Amino acid sequence: MPTQIWKSAGRLADGRQIIYFDESPGTGRAAVADTRPLAVADTERGAGELRQDPLTRDWVAFAEHRQGRTFLPAAGDCPLCPSGPGRPTEIPADSYDVVVFENRFPALPPGSGRCEVVCFTPEHEASFATLSPRRVATVLSAWADRTAELGRADGIEHVYCFENRGEEVGVTLHHPHGQVYALPFIPPRTRQLTASALAHWSRTGRNRFDELLAAELDDRRRIVAGNAQWTAFVPPAAHWPFEVLLFPARRVPDLAALSPAAIDGFAEVYLDVLARLDALFGVPMPYMACWQQAPSADVSARAVFGLHLQVMAMRRAPGKLKYMASTEAGAGVWSNDVLPETAARMLREAR
Amino acid sequence: MPTQIWKSAGRLADGRQIIYFDESPGTGRAAVADTRPLAVADTERGAGELRQDPLTRDWVAFAEHRQGRTFLPAAGDCPLCPSGPGRPTEIPADSYDVVVFENRFPALPPGSGRCEVVCFTPEHEASFATLSPRRVATVLSAWADRTAELGRADGIEHVYCFENRGEEVGVTLHHPHGQVYALPFIPPRTRQLTASALAHWSRTGRNRFDELLAAELDDRRRIVAGNAQWTAFVPPAAHWPFEVLLFPARRVPDLAALSPAAIDGFAEVYLDVLARLDALFGVPMPYMACWQQAPSADVSARAVFGLHLQVMAMRRAPGKLKYMASTEAGAGVWSNDVLPETAARMLREAR
Repeated sequence: MPTQIWKSAGRLADGRQIIYFDESPGTGRAAVADTRPLAVADTERGAGELRQDPLTRDWVAFAEHRQGRTFLPAAGDCPLCPSGPGRPTEIPADSYDVVVFENRFPALPPGSGRCEVVCFTPEHEASFATLSPRRVATVLSAWADRTAELGRADGIEHVYCFENRGEEVGVTLHHPHGQVYALPFIPPRTRQLTASALAHWSRTGRNRFDELLAAELDDRRRIVAGNAQWTAFVPPAAHWPFEVLLFPARRVPDLAALSPAAIDGFAEVYLDVLARLDALFGVPMPYMACWQQAPSADVSARAVFGLHLQVMAMRRAPGKLKYMASTEAGAGVWSNDVLPETAARMLREAR
Repeated sequence: MPTQIWKSAGRLADGRQIIYFDESPGTGRAAVADTRPLAVADTERGAGELRQDPLTRDWVAFAEHRQGRTFLPAAGDCPLCPSGPGRPTEIPADSYDVVVFENRFPALPPGSGRCEVVCFTPEHEASFATLSPRRVATVLSAWADRTAELGRADGIEHVYCFENRGEEVGVTLHHPHGQVYALPFIPPRTRQLTASALAHWSRTGRNRFDELLAAELDDRRRIVAGNAQWTAFVPPAAHWPFEVLLFPARRVPDLAALSPAAIDGFAEVYLDVLARLDALFGVPMPYMACWQQAPSADVSARAVFGLHLQVMAMRRAPGKLKYMASTEAGAGVWSNDVLPETAARMLREAR
């Protein structure tokens, strides 16, 4: 039986939307008022702009107000904890299961998309890896909800859901949270994956994502974990020393198209992968976890795209990080010091 | 009158090539023998491989032997200093001006390209910013020489020259040095810049690089420095908080095609830019400096490509770095907290 979720929405003092995803009914959380004297300040909400690079044609979002965003606050000042007596935070309620709200310091300018924060748990010291399976399903359902709802909005071409974990990735708030960017353009990587899949289909009549999953299940050397619903493997040309892709057994274009069984089956595999990444070097692994999904409205792209989670872990050895430097950032050329078969074996042996 | 350079080549104990670029004749440096008992070890020189990503079709270089490469050695153990009595290094001579040698820990597998190290000065504590103008011209000439020579080699499609500066960019050796990757494929960014320029030319009959330089010289808000030979400006859709492009006044496809006057004129502008970057926050600025140049042999690409240096500085504020995280690494979507006009003004006012 699929996980049940109760969704309710309210507004913060400055007009931003907040949405609670509760695991039990009747919490009344959305009705709790935000008592803070927040003004709807254009300077804070962003007079930013999107600009197109004249040489590459890709888009860059400018948001100077973000320079003043909250930066590694003490635990007692965390804006993502529930509100307490005399300490109002971004979440007016005194507890929550999963909560989503519009980012106070959005990277995207008003009218050109939307940036949301997704809090995974009220527990400040938790991490995604310590969530219960039930909570993982609620987080996934919240991301699926945002993918469907924001993907239908005027001017939105792609919904990008992700989590950055660790100061080494530039995280500025430690409280466990992910993000959603509803974008007015198709991101370069999504465009590249789509073009490659369409070309392969035109040429061979086969689906690139289906072929990759089938080949990995057949080969098995790079498999890290799996169940009937999901397979986790190190990709054969991994760009990061410890990169893991999670593919659902049945291809779907995006999170909103996942079956209830796929949503419920995700936690077992992903929590296993995260535990292995943390166990690998005995210290919490900094990572980027990125949902690669189809453009919101492009019918031919959606017919070939295969949703997957791309987890890029940033430590290559104890005390050593993998950096993106001139070859990666300047040329798009990647080198990797760990063979994917080695990485998968190390992850299978960790825990 | 153009800078004169004396080039001579030798071999290290394990057969790797070393090339001295001297600013005076008759040094005899290439004849100094490498006395180290280095074996031509396949395990060390790399049994790596190139693999193509099945989803994106780009190439990744695997080199497990690099995990054991020299990592932030003490100054007395620096392998890029000249050799001294009882302390042989990678450079057998007891001094040098600029020296290039094959990397002992190459990222590219044997037979699939070549990785070279370019030492800018024998002075361990120096940096590119402290080089003399004459030395800058010698470095640029060495990179131009490698571009021409390696670009003619069988199987090489692109020569990529760059410098990473600062531990924040993952630098593992502090001694001032750059690198050269001779690649058996055209890097994704080079391909993107080329395709965009060719499409623009087909559509408008105009050159994208020429238009950008002319527009910046006309607008002036983003100009940082310049002389008759070079212009340094923050690009209008900069991806990094402090990103500076250096364009030669006359478009050429690559470093090997620069005129002697352009090579000599580079130091004045680039040293000015580097001094401003270091002065900006009062601490040495970590940066990636990447020569964007045309594919080695693609005639139509070379007809439209405009060589330029892309300098990407990594600090966005005192004590705060710009990170590539999930939006950049997972989606190719960039956000920037500093408007290019602001960045250019701050750089013009620094020093």
